[in-house]
Amino acid sequence: MLFQRIESEGIAQYSYLVGDSHEAVVIDPRRDIDVYLEAATFQGYRIVAVLETHRHEDFVLGSVELAARTGAEIWHADGQWDYRYGQAARDGQTWKIGRLKLEAISSPGHTPGSMSYLLYDSGVNPWIVFTGDALFAGDVGRVDFLGEDRMAGMAGLLYDTLYRRLLPLGDEVIVCPGHGAGSVCAADIADRSWTTIGLERRYNPKLQFPDRDAFVLGVARKLEYAPYFREMERLNLEGPPLLGEMPLPKPLSAASFASQIESSVVVDTRMELGFGAAHVPGSLSIWLGGLPGYAGWFLPYGKPILLVQEGEDPSPTFRYLVRFGYDTLAGHLAGGMLSWNTAGYENESVPMVPVSSLCRLLDSGEKAWILDVRSEDELVSHGSISGAHNIHLTMLPERMNEVPKDGPVYIFCASDLRSMIAASLLQRAGWRNAAVVLGGLIGWNSTTCPIV
Amino acid sequence: MLFQRIESEGIAQYSYLVGDSHEAVVIDPRRDIDVYLEAATFQGYRIVAVLETHRHEDFVLGSVELAARTGAEIWHADGQWDYRYGQAARDGQTWKIGRLKLEAISSPGHTPGSMSYLLYDSGVNPWIVFTGDALFAGDVGRVDFLGEDRMAGMAGLLYDTLYRRLLPLGDEVIVCPGHGAGSVCAADIADRSWTTIGLERRYNPKLQFPDRDAFVLGVARKLEYAPYFREMERLNLEGPPLLGEMPLPKPLSAASFASQIESSVVVDTRMELGFGAAHVPGSLSIWLGGLPGYAGWFLPYGKPILLVQEGEDPSPTFRYLVRFGYDTLAGHLAGGMLSWNTAGYENESVPMVPVSSLCRLLDSGEKAWILDVRSEDELVSHGSISGAHNIHLTMLPERMNEVPKDGPVYIFCASDLRSMIAASLLQRAGWRNAAVVLGGLIGWNSTTCPIV
Amino acid sequence: MLFQRIESEGIAQYSYLVGDSHEAVVIDPRRDIDVYLEAATFQGYRIVAVLETHRHEDFVLGSVELAARTGAEIWHADGQWDYRYGQAARDGQTWKIGRLKLEAISSPGHTPGSMSYLLYDSGVNPWIVFTGDALFAGDVGRVDFLGEDRMAGMAGLLYDTLYRRLLPLGDEVIVCPGHGAGSVCAADIADRSWTTIGLERRYNPKLQFPDRDAFVLGVARKLEYAPYFREMERLNLEGPPLLGEMPLPKPLSAASFASQIESSVVVDTRMELGFGAAHVPGSLSIWLGGLPGYAGWFLPYGKPILLVQEGEDPSPTFRYLVRFGYDTLAGHLAGGMLSWNTAGYENESVPMVPVSSLCRLLDSGEKAWILDVRSEDELVSHGSISGAHNIHLTMLPERMNEVPKDGPVYIFCASDLRSMIAASLLQRAGWRNAAVVLGGLIGWNSTTCPIV
Amino acid sequence: MLFQRIESEGIAQYSYLVGDSHEAVVIDPRRDIDVYLEAATFQGYRIVAVLETHRHEDFVLGSVELAARTGAEIWHADGQWDYRYGQAARDGQTWKIGRLKLEAISSPGHTPGSMSYLLYDSGVNPWIVFTGDALFAGDVGRVDFLGEDRMAGMAGLLYDTLYRRLLPLGDEVIVCPGHGAGSVCAADIADRSWTTIGLERRYNPKLQFPDRDAFVLGVARKLEYAPYFREMERLNLEGPPLLGEMPLPKPLSAASFASQIESSVVVDTRMELGFGAAHVPGSLSIWLGGLPGYAGWFLPYGKPILLVQEGEDPSPTFRYLVRFGYDTLAGHLAGGMLSWNTAGYENESVPMVPVSSLCRLLDSGEKAWILDVRSEDELVSHGSISGAHNIHLTMLPERMNEVPKDGPVYIFCASDLRSMIAASLLQRAGWRNAAVVLGGLIGWNSTTCPIV
Repeated sequence: MLFQRIESEGIAQYSYLVGDSHEAVVIDPRRDIDVYLEAATFQGYRIVAVLETHRHEDFVLGSVELAARTGAEIWHADGQWDYRYGQAARDGQTWKIGRLKLEAISSPGHTPGSMSYLLYDSGVNPWIVFTGDALFAGDVGRVDFLGEDRMAGMAGLLYDTLYRRLLPLGDEVIVCPGHGAGSVCAADIADRSWTTIGLERRYNPKLQFPDRDAFVLGVARKLEYAPYFREMERLNLEGPPLLGEMPLPKPLSAASFASQIESSVVVDTRMELGFGAAHVPGSLSIWLGGLPGYAGWFLPYGKPILLVQEGEDPSPTFRYLVRFGYDTLAGHLAGGMLSWNTAGYENESVPMVPVSSLCRLLDSGEKAWILDVRSEDELVSHGSISGAHNIHLTMLPERMNEVPKDGPVYIFCASDLRSMIAASLLQRAGWRNAAVVLGGLIGWNSTTCPIV
Repeated sequence: MLFQRIESEGIAQYSYLVGDSHEAVVIDPRRDIDVYLEAATFQGYRIVAVLETHRHEDFVLGSVELAARTGAEIWHADGQWDYRYGQAARDGQTWKIGRLKLEAISSPGHTPGSMSYLLYDSGVNPWIVFTGDALFAGDVGRVDFLGEDRMAGMAGLLYDTLYRRLLPLGDEVIVCPGHGAGSVCAADIADRSWTTIGLERRYNPKLQFPDRDAFVLGVARKLEYAPYFREMERLNLEGPPLLGEMPLPKPLSAASFASQIESSVVVDTRMELGFGAAHVPGSLSIWLGGLPGYAGWFLPYGKPILLVQEGEDPSPTFRYLVRFGYDTLAGHLAGGMLSWNTAGYENESVPMVPVSSLCRLLDSGEKAWILDVRSEDELVSHGSISGAHNIHLTMLPERMNEVPKDGPVYIFCASDLRSMIAASLLQRAGWRNAAVVLGGLIGWNSTTCPIV
Repeated sequence: MLFQRIESEGIAQYSYLVGDSHEAVVIDPRRDIDVYLEAATFQGYRIVAVLETHRHEDFVLGSVELAARTGAEIWHADGQWDYRYGQAARDGQTWKIGRLKLEAISSPGHTPGSMSYLLYDSGVNPWIVFTGDALFAGDVGRVDFLGEDRMAGMAGLLYDTLYRRLLPLGDEVIVCPGHGAGSVCAADIADRSWTTIGLERRYNPKLQFPDRDAFVLGVARKLEYAPYFREMERLNLEGPPLLGEMPLPKPLSAASFASQIESSVVVDTRMELGFGAAHVPGSLSIWLGGLPGYAGWFLPYGKPILLVQEGEDPSPTFRYLVRFGYDTLAGHLAGGMLSWNTAGYENESVPMVPVSSLCRLLDSGEKAWILDVRSEDELVSHGSISGAHNIHLTMLPERMNEVPKDGPVYIFCASDLRSMIAASLLQRAGWRNAAVVLGGLIGWNSTTCPIV
Repeated sequence: MLFQRIESEGIAQYSYLVGDSHEAVVIDPRRDIDVYLEAATFQGYRIVAVLETHRHEDFVLGSVELAARTGAEIWHADGQWDYRYGQAARDGQTWKIGRLKLEAISSPGHTPGSMSYLLYDSGVNPWIVFTGDALFAGDVGRVDFLGEDRMAGMAGLLYDTLYRRLLPLGDEVIVCPGHGAGSVCAADIADRSWTTIGLERRYNPKLQFPDRDAFVLGVARKLEYAPYFREMERLNLEGPPLLGEMPLPKPLSAASFASQIESSVVVDTRMELGFGAAHVPGSLSIWLGGLPGYAGWFLPYGKPILLVQEGEDPSPTFRYLVRFGYDTLAGHLAGGMLSWNTAGYENESVPMVPVSSLCRLLDSGEKAWILDVRSEDELVSHGSISGAHNIHLTMLPERMNEVPKDGPVYIFCASDLRSMIAASLLQRAGWRNAAVVLGGLIGWNSTTCPIV
């Protein structure tokens, strides 16, 4: 038989390829489907069905793309919404995949019509449950997507899903969730890459509440809502354009790149130090590994995207962007910053100071406005610097005017990657005085800075 | 700079990727274009143009597919014909690719409007000439495509192309032809994988004739015309369907496979010995490596194609077939012959005898009808068995009735791969008495068979 | 963190790569260690330790090879034996790998000093237990390696391991065994590729006995002991030669191949049908996928091995062989059987009959000696043909004289792959009358053969 | 047949794999030989011989490594020196590789005993000549390795080699040299990736001298002699240690890295901008692509090497270093500069100014000491900035005291990659005032800087 978990890095999204006797299903496929096609084709499996656990809001599903290439049937959850493709799965519905059996389990809470899918061993014994965003390792799905007024109701539904449908499957059943640690779909997913009902029952903090009311109180919490969620929801209802027909991004000479800047948005995926040293004026810093997590917060839809990167192959970035429906990557700066600089164009830099230097500065009595762009959760669990001003990175575009424009500003995050995103946002908006603190809060804690 | 020769195995077709300063052109691309996209993208080149040397008749060009993904301009030769895509290149037209320069050289003969393309080093010195099917290592292009009555005229044109346009470029110029050894586009391409004008001038047998008339007499020769050539010509004028949208072939259970046989054609790409031992009744044997060379002769267009193969991945066969416009690969027998046999279906076999056994048989005075399926050229250059009946493999479908149905028939080719194709053709048509001689003529010559 | 299961196909052996914070351990590495080095290096992990669950008898451990390249410490189980390398792990010993913790759990039964290793999540909660050959999905380790007289004692130890050490870890704990379905280390491993303590407690047939005595009675069973086990035991105590210094196998011309046959053993890894059609006289048939499972039963140590295969790359076979300490692969027949046959050498074939033909034959009253080479377990669970003679394939070399040499013999296995091994063994020993029944018992059951 | 050119990037070294009928030779293999083993093994070729064109001084040959794995015979040139391995090839000696023939042609000049190897097509016609470092595209080999006093003599020998042995082979013969553009073995190799005798005869500037004396005068020129040449010469006479037994480099935590700095040399292979922004104090900047070209000038032998890089996989750097006999790569900083900074360690930066800023500065009358680290050849062909002080990068360690320590220094190269190497060299030696001019001379020329 075939059992494979495919992780989309950056959003820690898990999809699953399950097959037997030359037939396979994919649960929650991502949009760039080559990974499924290759694995299935190479091993002689035909993908006959796509099962969706819910209408995802944090990435574009590959169901339509997969169906176009394989003829697979699409079964979606959240049948209450108006899909332009596929059919709605029903609670209790079963699928036979060779000797295996899959059964849909209605699992509302994260969305009103979420489904889990239970895989039976040899078609008989409950074995693995694919829980989508209902249950994670160490967390449960967020319940705030329908708005604050419906949060408590959704939390209640999720409680019932967990305690009436999922936990009763038995401690021994393996849990395959829709995300691992690092997702925006839950705040506290654990770094426990494989888990079981029993492990969650025992160690998941959200399953330790005394009763339903306490659970509702504990999990009904408004989290951040990224601008791109709305676009994902739309694309997942309508079905996105097919990738197989999409033009490839182009290498652009410095001159050609420069001429298109006005009408585009420029993203620079190099590591923070290179960006800080020199970058195309007006560009947004998001290091490549952070692109899946942050593109959706800061990149507008509809505008052509220009890319500055290390090396020449734009494919990884292209892949990351289309996973979020950014289908407008126009090209990248061929030759990178070197070609920009040798073409004699102006560049910009960001002041960077090591924590030790900042220590000395503060120690000497220098006044400094410190901006901490970490989330509230991080402040609570990892501590903060006294006197620092906290604006979570994702809120920065809206709250930018709180940051002084005259005196020096020192930006902190856990390390310094997000600080550089913040610095680039500020610089694009006209701030000239914002420095990134290299090493960030971890570095701060590693040294013995005299103040705090 | 970028210079890469891409060989399509089986038809020994050469295409070329040439680039400089982030721009590249492809000369005579094949239909499955991933190889060009990956090489160019990975190294930061944008494919800006496709140059065709002529309207190919032995494979489907990838010009339209490439233009769709990269926006490349298509420049075709043979502008006298009615293309639905691209523009016609003109003699003397030039293209700048970074510091490089390419120039079109009218090169009629193989087709009326063939073009060569001359690459200048640093834009100044003649360096490499892409000759398409005008000039090969050890041979020149065939001139019989417009019919026997125009052969002499075309041969004359080719002479002028060679002696007035190509040879004068200078002995030192590197020649990059459209095919290597093993193509149907010329009879005698040498196994000299890289060559120059001077090497051809000295050693190419077709360039040793004393004058134009002798040349015309020597090369104006009617060669075989495969049924698929017509389809290739049509597709290369109209532009083929895009592969990016094509459904993938499916693994099929023995039962499902069996139920579709009636309305399909079955191709078995296993090596000849496995086919001979047991195969699905009615299937056509073409070993995988021989598929590019023989599919076009024996596979009809329009019918679904069912595949029997070793292993589970049908991708190589799929790739080979679409290169010849066979877009109807429906699926393959999942689990191969093992699943056919364990499903209890009937199979057929082909008698196989080692040359040594045949020797003994003939030596004992046994009468045997020997069928030699090699080409006339092979008969001439490698000798033949006395008393053998020669029907070239490609003629067999039309001349099958010359083969006796009652007594035993022993099939020879150089080894035994083509013999098995012949045996499968005969078996499908009702012959039950045709045996393949393992080792073939090479084996015959390796042993000391007493007769001949 | 890093968690990866690596499966060695053919023996379904599982090794595991577990890491955190740039440090990793490997549990039960195989001898060709490139897979660990690449995964670890690529992701920035240093392999600091090798943990062995027992002195394996069915493959060569890669501990010594891994230590040589990475400096990893080797911790072996079965410390009661005399190792030439590494140190003995002790019950309760712990290892810190970044934030993870591993703990040794004494787990005797399969061998006297087997160890399991328990992985704690975040260093605190029992999460995954690596059980080696103590506990599998659907089975437990065999207990007969020390001889029949000690079987009951070992079974008792295993009971205590299971019920006092492993099951008490909790239903929710994930079980990572040393083998999956298809191993010689247990008879009935289930096709449940991931499992938990609870799944095994509920569904593993060997964990359903009422008490210790019943368990001992149920599992203390003499299984087959392959000749190569002894060699594996020796190599795993002494440490095998390093692969990095081993000469590569060579392609050999037919003549060179022929000249070395006398002093070598010839293995043919092509699929059964090709072998049956024609093979080098005296060669042993083991299809490539069956090589890991059957080489150790039929290939002698010390003799040069000559290989006949499909295609030219001997690397997969080389890899399979060194995993069992066969370090003497001298070369392969370049060009395969085609070059053998074109060189005019004699070949041999094996009669093959489809089940349907055999049906008709038997139906017509023809007397036939049927040899069934399946195991006793298979006879019991899948049924047998009345009148068939059963000699398990692995016993055939010793019991060959029970097979008649005069009349026709029809060989059955489940399909026909093992039948071809049997036919090749018989043919090498002088039998000329043994035919393979294509489709085997599954085919037999698929058709409606009138007799039985 | 098999014909493959393998390029070692960075030193533009060409080796060649040539084979026929399952036998192959390698000409001038590099030390990491996996590329040859894989190509040959995969296609069924056995490497039977290694042919060396001379005792190379710019990289470590893989002859000994290749012989150890394949049993190939080693034939070296420069038989006048005292090799510890292999046999000396003789002028006129021939090798048969299937249907091919290779012949040694004595080709002294670059070294006293250099050999070329001529490949005959079908064993008869001169086809391809492997010229080692005697003849390149656009240049000839340097003749100064035996010292200035013997330069003229060697140049005379080279003239005779070229005019009596190589050019007479015929304009049509293909030339396969030992290096492409970008080698230290000749100053002016052209970017003409494939060439012929005729192309060189016509366009190679070194073959345009009127007579022998003029040639000697023209090419007998002292070029730079890198410190590592001596080590390469030694290793290529003695044979280097085998790589298959070498321990792999290790990822190191920031603390572990820091503790080893004192006794090691630190190399940082990130791009220049990231290095300039922040680096481990005392580290040497050589961007990854420049490592093969510059490591040998600035890295001492014998000392452990510590690596700072982008990403986690040290394999490319490892590979580059062992090609030059640097076998002491101890490990790399796991997590890169981010982990250094979050560990709170001090870092250093390099001032960087865009050319436009420098323009403005100079325009304003500011006094600036400009250091141009380009070679003399570059100064001549691309021009220079008036008032700039030229010290070629490779001379900087010896002439560092010419650079002022008090006022600001602005470093120029063509772009800015080598400038950063220079800046790191100065910074390690105590200079605190040296800034890198981003965009360099090309950038300077791209803008309209008012001065010069």
